[in-house]
Amino acid sequence: MVAKALLPEFWTEILVPVCAVVGIAFSLFQWYIVSCVKLTADRGASSLSEDGRNGHGDYLIEEEEGVNDQSVVAKCAEIQTAISEGATSFLFTEYKYVGVFMVFFAAIIFLFLGSVQGFSTKSQPCTYDKTTTCKPALATAVFSTISFVLGAVTSVLSGFLGMKIATYANARTTLEARRGVGKAFIVAFRSGAVMGFLLAANGLLVLYITINLFKIYYGDDWEGLFESITGYGLGGSSMALFGRVGGGIYTKAADVGADLVGKVERNIPEDDPRNPAVIADNVGDNVGDIAGMGSDLFGSYAESSCAALVVASISSFGISHDFTAMLFPLLISSMGILVCLITTLFATDISEIKAVKEIEPALKNQLIISTLFMTVGIAIVSWTALPYSFTIYNFGTQKLVKNWELFLCVAVGLWAGLIIGFVTEYYTSNAYIPVQDVADSCRTGAATNVIFGLALGYKSVIIPIFAIAVSIFVSFSLAAMYGVAVAALGMLSTIATGLAIDAYGPISDNAGGIAEMAGMSHRIRERTDALDAAGNTTAAIGKGFAIGSAALVSLALFGAFVSRAGIQTVDVLTPKVVIGLLVGAMLPYWLSAMTMKSVGSAALKMVEEVRRQFNTIPGLMEGTAKPDYATCVKISTDASIKEMIPPGCLVMLTPLIVGFFFGVETLSGVLAGSLISGVQIAISASNTVGAWDNAKKYIEAGASEHARSLGPKGSEPHKAAVIGDTIGDPLKDTSGPSLNILIKLMAVESLVFAPFFATHGGFLFNIFS
Amino acid sequence: MVAKALLPEFWTEILVPVCAVVGIAFSLFQWYIVSCVKLTADRGASSLSEDGRNGHGDYLIEEEEGVNDQSVVAKCAEIQTAISEGATSFLFTEYKYVGVFMVFFAAIIFLFLGSVQGFSTKSQPCTYDKTTTCKPALATAVFSTISFVLGAVTSVLSGFLGMKIATYANARTTLEARRGVGKAFIVAFRSGAVMGFLLAANGLLVLYITINLFKIYYGDDWEGLFESITGYGLGGSSMALFGRVGGGIYTKAADVGADLVGKVERNIPEDDPRNPAVIADNVGDNVGDIAGMGSDLFGSYAESSCAALVVASISSFGISHDFTAMLFPLLISSMGILVCLITTLFATDISEIKAVKEIEPALKNQLIISTLFMTVGIAIVSWTALPYSFTIYNFGTQKLVKNWELFLCVAVGLWAGLIIGFVTEYYTSNAYIPVQDVADSCRTGAATNVIFGLALGYKSVIIPIFAIAVSIFVSFSLAAMYGVAVAALGMLSTIATGLAIDAYGPISDNAGGIAEMAGMSHRIRERTDALDAAGNTTAAIGKGFAIGSAALVSLALFGAFVSRAGIQTVDVLTPKVVIGLLVGAMLPYWLSAMTMKSVGSAALKMVEEVRRQFNTIPGLMEGTAKPDYATCVKISTDASIKEMIPPGCLVMLTPLIVGFFFGVETLSGVLAGSLISGVQIAISASNTVGAWDNAKKYIEAGASEHARSLGPKGSEPHKAAVIGDTIGDPLKDTSGPSLNILIKLMAVESLVFAPFFATHGGFLFNIFS
Repeated sequence: MVAKALLPEFWTEILVPVCAVVGIAFSLFQWYIVSCVKLTADRGASSLSEDGRNGHGDYLIEEEEGVNDQSVVAKCAEIQTAISEGATSFLFTEYKYVGVFMVFFAAIIFLFLGSVQGFSTKSQPCTYDKTTTCKPALATAVFSTISFVLGAVTSVLSGFLGMKIATYANARTTLEARRGVGKAFIVAFRSGAVMGFLLAANGLLVLYITINLFKIYYGDDWEGLFESITGYGLGGSSMALFGRVGGGIYTKAADVGADLVGKVERNIPEDDPRNPAVIADNVGDNVGDIAGMGSDLFGSYAESSCAALVVASISSFGISHDFTAMLFPLLISSMGILVCLITTLFATDISEIKAVKEIEPALKNQLIISTLFMTVGIAIVSWTALPYSFTIYNFGTQKLVKNWELFLCVAVGLWAGLIIGFVTEYYTSNAYIPVQDVADSCRTGAATNVIFGLALGYKSVIIPIFAIAVSIFVSFSLAAMYGVAVAALGMLSTIATGLAIDAYGPISDNAGGIAEMAGMSHRIRERTDALDAAGNTTAAIGKGFAIGSAALVSLALFGAFVSRAGIQTVDVLTPKVVIGLLVGAMLPYWLSAMTMKSVGSAALKMVEEVRRQFNTIPGLMEGTAKPDYATCVKISTDASIKEMIPPGCLVMLTPLIVGFFFGVETLSGVLAGSLISGVQIAISASNTVGAWDNAKKYIEAGASEHARSLGPKGSEPHKAAVIGDTIGDPLKDTSGPSLNILIKLMAVESLVFAPFFATHGGFLFNIFS
Repeated sequence: MVAKALLPEFWTEILVPVCAVVGIAFSLFQWYIVSCVKLTADRGASSLSEDGRNGHGDYLIEEEEGVNDQSVVAKCAEIQTAISEGATSFLFTEYKYVGVFMVFFAAIIFLFLGSVQGFSTKSQPCTYDKTTTCKPALATAVFSTISFVLGAVTSVLSGFLGMKIATYANARTTLEARRGVGKAFIVAFRSGAVMGFLLAANGLLVLYITINLFKIYYGDDWEGLFESITGYGLGGSSMALFGRVGGGIYTKAADVGADLVGKVERNIPEDDPRNPAVIADNVGDNVGDIAGMGSDLFGSYAESSCAALVVASISSFGISHDFTAMLFPLLISSMGILVCLITTLFATDISEIKAVKEIEPALKNQLIISTLFMTVGIAIVSWTALPYSFTIYNFGTQKLVKNWELFLCVAVGLWAGLIIGFVTEYYTSNAYIPVQDVADSCRTGAATNVIFGLALGYKSVIIPIFAIAVSIFVSFSLAAMYGVAVAALGMLSTIATGLAIDAYGPISDNAGGIAEMAGMSHRIRERTDALDAAGNTTAAIGKGFAIGSAALVSLALFGAFVSRAGIQTVDVLTPKVVIGLLVGAMLPYWLSAMTMKSVGSAALKMVEEVRRQFNTIPGLMEGTAKPDYATCVKISTDASIKEMIPPGCLVMLTPLIVGFFFGVETLSGVLAGSLISGVQIAISASNTVGAWDNAKKYIEAGASEHARSLGPKGSEPHKAAVIGDTIGDPLKDTSGPSLNILIKLMAVESLVFAPFFATHGGFLFNIFS
């Protein structure tokens, strides 16, 4: 008999939902504070100024500027309404399509999994422990389908709420920027926190409730219970695919369409409200960077929890029915919410932003503080929620693990995330040599800029890959695939803070756009630009986290798949595996080619629509008539949904086709191949693009002697930098981020369908042999 | 007792060297014909016109132009001498460094392999068959070192001779272009054939002689004999590393240096003889494209032969001492030489080139004809040289194989090569839609050109990867790693023809440069340009072959390494292997970042030297003084040799470090990871760059309505196309090709050092466990 955890089951049952509810309450409280910045012209400036909340009214009061200009407030409110309308229009169209997909795929899950035992309703001997009886495959089919739908709905909800708060906060950030950079920072950061906490807590709560409800039916059959729960990860991640790819095509189509017709053909400024596509462009930022990233990280979180749970269910936790130890992944996430809550207070209440140069350190400190606290948090959870020693399933055998070893697994993932974050910052922030070198290479033209940018991206892969490799080696050696899964959870345990500083970026970006559109003064734009510059770096860090965690998660899912499919080894020295590896490593290239082409055709449609409006709506150029924003939004939405079908099919169908026709060995190869190849491309693309973007910003800002020698805007080096930045657009927002989803989604899909492949897979090879 | 082959051992011993000698004789004969074009002013035009050789004097005689202008001949001769001087200067400096490396690495091989049994001179029981006695490890150490040196010397010799004939033929091609495009084509093609046949036959002959000499010592210990022979592959491939990386840095440093100072600062035309770096630039083309590619393909050929031989030595061929079957790989290569010889006659004597548009089909026909004939050739060799059934070593067991199955293995490799060639042609020739789309994207600027080019490269990976995957699956399933090795040999069996049409490209390119420098008429430049355009496509096809064969070869070597290191499985589900895969997949990025940076710093040194010469040599700009070509050549040589040390160390030391510190499992992971990731990057980079290059040429040539709408030279779309072409430069000639070497060289090095790693490897893990 293995020892039980210190923490009684009763307290586990209470602690997890309490932490989730605390997270949601904190999120709503932040939302309330943001909402105190009024957007109605009659109230004028922020109500915050009245009671001096945030404690730094004294420091920044002398910076106040134009706070009593009511027409600006009205204009901001109008623009925000337009963005909000556009966002709603996008969401409704997207959900229509996503709904069809969800029903269709839910049916596939039910049919495929149900067919494993011919839709029999009789209980069967369990897969791993043949002496006990488990629920029939039909039950797994039903509950997997339910959890798939729950995961999808939660993901959609996370994306929707994230976009709502972001479009709610952008104009408020602009207005607060009139009152100082510190005030604007706080609004943007709080809004990011709303999204971060809502998403983390919501994901945890739904998962917790689902487990407890399923347990009513499953009883002591934890193997079946947690196998069904894997559908939750699949649901979350498949919605993330729509969010990332669709959102990416959307935003770039709008961006390119707005620029080509507005700036080039009609010669009106960027972000001009007369341009029919300008709202679609702003909506796109929220769709791609906020909702897409949110769904992506939610997917990673759901998947790593599912991977850990399914492995734990066939380990001593599951076998001896130790519910507290079983819920270790959820307890880690609960602790993460508390730690992030305290961390957030450091930015909003404990320390204060007084100058522009304090913004980036403040955001970086968030990462460091949360990592330090979380290390302690992990230790506490590992000590209380785990027995001193236990066994973990390791491809056919059980491996003895100590609780401090599991602590190391989670901690190594957490710290690897921090290292990836810092390396990303080094390679993409214009405060360091690499980006400055790229900027300098613009002297000799666009070609050298592109070459240096590519070389920078290639180089930036080295340390993150070693960080990921070390965390895989440590966690895998100590606790097999369970270790890898909890290492991924460790990296994602500070997801609330990560999302907060990540969402902060696009909110600041939008705020700058609104300031431009509302015709606010140069000084206010400078403030939002300063917020945005820091946001660029945090966005890159966020991408680094997303990729790093995706690598760990998909490895854990891969391990869980292999266990569930009943494979003992995945031997590179077999033809089935080696061709899988080769083809799998090719898939990221195929997907990238598809998404890059999709952006092209979607942008073309937008160009036509914008031209049409300028030609047919009288008074549009003169500013007397309002453009039809909704049609552009609809064009962008329809085009992006249509264009994302081929990439979506590639990702969703590959595991089904490979598994069914070529069997689980080849599928294992495909998963491993796409993982090890996709991670590299994703990291290198993300950093190359970040460097190009910030090299351009470096020249534009002209903050140093060197930067001024390359500028100003319109100089030859600046033109070269703009070309690099434009090349980066489809890589950054469409093809790059979709690679994360590719590697995770194929793995979780294989995991869900593992019993089907194990029974009916390898059709082609079966014919020939 | 397994049946013996039909072909008696006596005949095998005769046939192989006879075929090699026939190949060499044919090569020398071609050289003689090319040498009939006289470069001395007193003889005037070609002697070919006198006897009407080639049979088409009648058709092209009316095109003759300026054949009696003696000053042009003198000028061409002068330029050729300068290029020749430069080439000699490069080779001598390179060999000095390469010699040091060779001695150093030979010592490492001897020490490391000798240490396996503590330098004992006593015979030992064999690794696979413990009942028999094998020669001591010290003998393997000695003979591996010798075969390493032989392979290195053969590779160096191949590169040297290839460069000599190319620099010998370029001016002759220019002169023949005065007499018509058909005549020029024949000279360029014959010169390519000299290199192709010399290299293929020489490689075969040296390998054959080495085996027979080693056999005197080894006697019946074929296991030890063929293990020692693997050093031949390592020697060949490590010289290819120098050729590819060093040559690539060399040519790009000279190119960029010549352009930046000459064209931009001094405003003199491209290829102007006053520019001190112009000769280095022309030398560079020969170094990179001719010698580098030659060494690369020679390395592939040597390695796939070695991989096949070492696996065969522990299969029934080796165990039952069937020398004919054992030499099956060499017999395939011998047959290849005969087939290529017949194929060459189709281009030079049987059919005739009458017009520009016939050039590309003629070159493509070479590929098709050689593939068709070779299929019959393989069938003949498989029928006569193999017993009807035999066993092949398959990671611990022996697998029964029929001779027709082995025929299929070789044939599938051969045909996969043809498919890769055609796909490459489709994606890089401006006769098809993909390149025309890229050219069209230049309308909207350089950024879209880059995006479309990258997307094209990504997309072009799909079919070649499937072709490689299918050939791996078929050959691996039928005959384990021996099958993969002979599939690689099948792809390389038409190497003489492949090299001929590949070397044809840079020769035509140089011929065009010489025409420009010698101030010849527009019409002659048009003819060399037409030759060059076809050469671009064949160069891309050659790269496709090089990558495809590298993939198969390195897999075969990997399999041989695993067998020799005594590993039964390489399980992805172990931490040691999975981190190896991840880090291995990262290496191509690391190497690319290094080589791209190296080109940058080498180019900077060249810029300084060219500036110095223009500033200090009086009369240089006026054309009254000759520039110091040799110093530029020396600068380029020294810089490239110095800059190639870090990438060289990365490639050469990685297997040693990983094997010694982390052991054979992790090393297996690294090899597999770099293989599956490197192939994709190499194919996509090669095709992206080929497409950019030909999109530019498409706009410049203006051969269609569409092309003319984008041009002419100097238009905005053309400028955008030039940027794409420039970005491609370091990718095409430096980082892209070095990836082939990376994946092959690490594999063959691991194979050679396998006994050392198996004995002393895994140092770090041994400490901790």
